[in-house]
Formats: sequence, C-alpha cells, structure tokens
Amino acid sequence: MWRDLLPLGRDRESGGYRRYAWTPADTDCREWFKAQAETRGLTYELDRNGNQWAWLGDPTAGDAVVTGSHLDSVPDGGAFDGPLGVVSSFAALDELRSRGAKPGRPLAVVNFGDEEGARFGLACVGSRLAAGQLTLDKARELRDADGVTLPQAMERAGYDPEAIGADPERLARIGAFVELHVEQGRALDLSGDRVGIASAIWPHGRWRFDFHGEANHAGTTRIDDRRDPMLTYANTVLAARKKARLAGALATFGKISVEPNGVNAIPSLVRGWLDSRAADQDTLDLVIAEIEKAAVERGERDGVDVRITRESFTPVVEFEHALRDELGRILGGNVPVLGTGAGHDAGILSGTVPTAMLFVRNPTGVSHSPAETADEDDCLAGVTALADVLEGLACR
Amino acid sequence: MWRDLLPLGRDRESGGYRRYAWTPADTDCREWFKAQAETRGLTYELDRNGNQWAWLGDPTAGDAVVTGSHLDSVPDGGAFDGPLGVVSSFAALDELRSRGAKPGRPLAVVNFGDEEGARFGLACVGSRLAAGQLTLDKARELRDADGVTLPQAMERAGYDPEAIGADPERLARIGAFVELHVEQGRALDLSGDRVGIASAIWPHGRWRFDFHGEANHAGTTRIDDRRDPMLTYANTVLAARKKARLAGALATFGKISVEPNGVNAIPSLVRGWLDSRAADQDTLDLVIAEIEKAAVERGERDGVDVRITRESFTPVVEFEHALRDELGRILGGNVPVLGTGAGHDAGILSGTVPTAMLFVRNPTGVSHSPAETADEDDCLAGVTALADVLEGLACR
Repeated sequence: MWRDLLPLGRDRESGGYRRYAWTPADTDCREWFKAQAETRGLTYELDRNGNQWAWLGDPTAGDAVVTGSHLDSVPDGGAFDGPLGVVSSFAALDELRSRGAKPGRPLAVVNFGDEEGARFGLACVGSRLAAGQLTLDKARELRDADGVTLPQAMERAGYDPEAIGADPERLARIGAFVELHVEQGRALDLSGDRVGIASAIWPHGRWRFDFHGEANHAGTTRIDDRRDPMLTYANTVLAARKKARLAGALATFGKISVEPNGVNAIPSLVRGWLDSRAADQDTLDLVIAEIEKAAVERGERDGVDVRITRESFTPVVEFEHALRDELGRILGGNVPVLGTGAGHDAGILSGTVPTAMLFVRNPTGVSHSPAETADEDDCLAGVTALADVLEGLACR
Repeated sequence: MWRDLLPLGRDRESGGYRRYAWTPADTDCREWFKAQAETRGLTYELDRNGNQWAWLGDPTAGDAVVTGSHLDSVPDGGAFDGPLGVVSSFAALDELRSRGAKPGRPLAVVNFGDEEGARFGLACVGSRLAAGQLTLDKARELRDADGVTLPQAMERAGYDPEAIGADPERLARIGAFVELHVEQGRALDLSGDRVGIASAIWPHGRWRFDFHGEANHAGTTRIDDRRDPMLTYANTVLAARKKARLAGALATFGKISVEPNGVNAIPSLVRGWLDSRAADQDTLDLVIAEIEKAAVERGERDGVDVRITRESFTPVVEFEHALRDELGRILGGNVPVLGTGAGHDAGILSGTVPTAMLFVRNPTGVSHSPAETADEDDCLAGVTALADVLEGLACR
C-alpha cells in the first residue's frame, strides 16, 4: 500500500513531493485512496468539498469514529507529513479486522483536500469549507501563482466547484476524530517515546511585510540617495529571529517576492512573509509587536515604507480533554502529551467535533523537506496505537 | 520623434518600460529607428548581430564618426536610459543640417541590441558580439527565464541567428564613437552643469551567492535545530552595504531566488546576486573579499554552506584621452569630466575604436525606474553639445 503511494508526485531532482491540490499528482493520490477503499470493501464517498471518505459500517448511522489526514504536500515536501496518517488509518482498520474486533460504531478513513495550502496560500481548505470556517466568497477568490482560481482548478480536476460549502450534516455524523501525524519536531526523540498524544496546537499566523522603496540603478545611485527595501527586509529577518529566540517562540521568513528582481536594480518593492508561532497568545502578540516595531524603525532609517498585513491567524487549539484523557487510558499511562506548532485539519475540526491527535516519533525532527523521515518500527507502533484507539472507542 | 517612441513597450500599471531584446516591444522600437532613418534619407543597415545603423555619407568610406546608444530597457525602466542617446543622435544630425554643416567624414547613428541584458542576463550583447568579446558558443547558450535561447529569440523576431559573430570590418569603418547618455547619478546636478564628459567606467561585476541550508517546517523546528539560509543571506545583505559604504564603493543585492519559497518552510536554498562597483580595482577587490568573509563567517554560525560564483566582471574602462580632450576643447573648457558606475556599449567598443561619452544632467539621479527623468532644457543642451562634437570632429 505504502509502495504504491511513494512515487506519486515526487520530483526527480529534489526527491521531494509536489502534490499540490487539484493537480495531476493530487489526482493520482486520490485514485490511490479510492482504490484502497474499494480493495477493502469500504463504502467510498466524495463530499461536496472534495474530501474523500472510506466507511466501514453505515455512514449515516451517526456517532462515527473517524481517522485520517491528508495526501497533499508542501513544495518539495517529505513522504510522511499527511500520508503517514492516511496509510496508518487503512492499516489500523486491517489490524482491527485481523484482531476480529466488532465495531459498535461506524468507522471511517478521511483524506482532507488541500491541507498544506501550497497552491492557494490558505491551509486546510477542505476541512475549513466543511466546518464553515471559510466563506464561499473567500474560497472562490483564492488564486494560485498562475491566476487560476480554486473553482477553476477543481473543475479542471473533474470536480463540481458549484457544490462547495459548509457541510454540517456530514460533520454531525462524527462522534470522534483522531488524526495520526508524524511529529514535526524532536520532542518524542528527546523523550525516547515512539508515540505521543497532542495537547494543543500553538496559536500561529502569517503576516505579509511589504517594504516599499525606490527602484534605481545599482551601479550609479549614491548610497545617500538610496531607498533600498532589501536592507529593511534583511534587518527585519534578523530581528524576527532574535525576538522569537528571546521569547521562546518561532518566527521565520521563508517566502519572498522582489520587484523588479534585477541584478543591477535597487528593488522598488520587497515582500516577505513571516510565519510565527508561540505556546500562548500573549507571547505571540509580543513577538509580532516587536518585529513590527523593528521593521518600521529600520524602514524610517532606510527611507522605506513598511506595510504589514495579517494574512491568516489561528488561535490556540486545545484538544478536547475528555477524548485526550480517554486516549491516554487506552494507550496506558506512560504516553507523553505534547503541544505542536503546526496546524492540522484536526485543529479546524476541533471546533465542531471532539478531536484528538497521535504523533509518531521523527528521529531528526525534519519536516516539510525531502529529508523528513520516520523509522519503520515507530510507524508500526503508530498503527498499533491507532488500532488500539479505534478499538477502544468503537468496539467496547 | 520622441512622442512616437514614448508609448512603445510601456507597462500600463507601473508606467515603466519593458523593452526586452527580441520581444514585440523591442521590434516596435526597431521599426521606429528604421522609420527615422528613412524619413531623413539616411542609408539604413542591419548588421549581422542585429545592431541598426543609419548612415549620412558612404558607410564604406572609413574614418566615420558614429553616435548612438540603445533602445532596450531593464524591467520597468525609465524613458531616457538608452533612447535619449538615439533620439539626440538623430536630432543632432538635424541640427547639423540646419546649420548648413558639410561633413568631411561619414556620420552614422547606431542602435545596439540588448544593451541592458534584461532578458538573457548578459549586458551589451550586440556590441560584445560585434567586438568579438562574446564567443559564439557562449552567445548560443544564453537563455531567458522561459528557457528560450538567444538564437531562438532572434529567429522568432525575424532575424538570422546563424549570422551572428565578430564584425571587425564594420568596426574598422569607425574613426570615433561618441555615446550620449542620461547621467545615472547626481554629479551634474550637484555641480550645476547640463552636460558632462565621461572619464572612465568603474570596474564592476556580478557575484552569485548560494546559501545552502536545510528545508524544514517553520512551525515546529526548534531554533537550535535550524539551518536557515535566509538568516545568512540577510546578514550578508547588511554586511555588503556596510563594507561598501566604508570603502566609498557600491554593493547591492537586488535579485533573489528562494527554494522552496513557501510561507511555512525554512528554505533549503537562498540565492542572492550581488552587484558591486568601485572607482578602482583594488577597492573593489577589497570590498568583495570583505563581503565574502562576512558571508562565510555567518554561514558557519547558521550551519549554512556558502558558495560564491563570479558571474561577470568588467575591468575599469578609461576612455581614450585624446578624444576626451578633443571633446573638451570643442565644448569649451568648463565642461566637467566624470566617472560612472554603469556599463555601456561605449565601454565595450572602447577596446576597439576611439570612444567617448557625453552625459546629460539627471535632476534626481534616479535611473532604471519609471521615475527616471531629465529636464527638456538639459536634453536640448545635450543635442547641441552632440551636434557641436559631430561638427567639430567631422566638419573641420
């Protein structure tokens, strides 16, 4: 099962995955999901937002236990972020069958569409639409780098973009959602555990910094006459790292766009995107305020106008304590409980249905990179833990 | 004449020019040049490298006095850089006729192709090819951002790419080349002069800095586990400015490319291009060595591997003293003589034929930007000075 999925959407040069929503690579992954459902005699459903479901038992009976994750990737992403959760979900169902477990509640595996937001710039589009956390107007305005809108992309991939929208009936069928995911840090590696349970998702957001200077000739403009926004950007990048480090938070400039981006031209505009996260809201607010202050102050020195736009924000997500504690009981008392800086579909759904997450150890902590990895034994321990959870929740 | 040229290749949004070599906008400018030649009854020639010539007198007689510049632009360039020299050349010929001057030597106006190098990344392709300073093999390997080669681009624009190559016979016809150009700094503005004479072009070059780090998840990777090349890049940008300022040189990072360039991904690779220039070679060498040292040192701290490639370099160009002094005598003793950081076709030709340059005052010093400007009175003073020079060289 894993072997069939591995080559899909993999870039030959980088070794990383480029499974962007509604592209041919994404369609290949979706065909794989459908085939896995059919092989097992599960009831396959495609919902109005393009999320895929594979049901064991009656989808409409209610109080279902659902597991799953996503199959799309960031640019040059790793093999595990997303797919490990989907593959482990099917494997856990296989494990339940081989144990002869008799589920008293419906079970399902789900593949949420466009979790990473690599194409349209907004993460968790599939689950946000279903949960009514993304309006139709906003969804229809999403555009990729080539100007293709989300509805156009869905239509080209053979889906009906007219159908998208909130899906409360479908979510109302779910009694519990459990997402398994490779850890995207080294907490389990440092504690020596194979599997952990999520406590919360840190508050996190994306801010766009527009540094407006003045285009000019790089070879002839006196230093005193320059208004070079690259300097303000550079200083802000270093300030962000410093402020985050001092506060125990994270702040990263990973994306940039420059105009005119010519070797011999001082830029007129440098646009940098800041990703920042912290364990609590107050710390995050403080870090962002300090970075903004540093940017504006340096901008005044450089003659550069700085405009800052918050493009997205997700407050802290505390997973439901009752479900989290029940997972702890099922798995035995020694499984560590840990927070994470990464957003997930589970975080989106947690506002609507009881939700929990399992993490599988990542020996290097590397994520969103071709070098992302997990040991086979740890992955198998993840499958066993997920099977235990499904059995514990649905078969007692 | 100026009015017909102004709208060609102008971007509606930015107000800047996008006249890239062998594009439709470039073809429009070339049609304009040909029409100007024909209107004046000049002999029109297209040479093997796509440079355009308009002759008054016998092109083959030898010892010609040639003037001109280029019509292509940088991305979102201004209206004057290049075109002012071509327009002023035609206007100076008109002025000579209205004076009743009788040239004893052939006169010509030239439009050199692809001076800015905006499309293929190498400046002065037309004059380099003619002067034998660009080999056929290297010219054929030039590619634009879409992978189109120079020969393919020329062919699509209706030219014969098989013909390109060194053109010593044509250059041997030239007894003196004088290029008029808008100043790309504020020296004339500060000294209060309308027109100046060039002394030298500063040595200048382009260096590519490759910062190799490790792609990772921006929301989950501990600061201690990061190898973030954006930090090394940012520190190098600030170091370059500081080292250049202290040495009285120029150093600019105006172009960047990031992989994977995702908002929530620590980059695996940041590539930045440095443009640096100084009045003399020793100063430039010192500045580059200091920037390289700063980059490598910071790279060690960030766990980032730094590789530096010199992509192009042009040593100092001293214009011929005899011709420069003759221009000074013709224009009267008070015309200032100044150096420039910008490369020009005149710099390329100066290795083969006696060459000089005239600069017209730029009141803001802004160049390579839609805001580039020159006062009408100063432009007219430039035409008069160029006509004086042509008359002084060819009609005595």
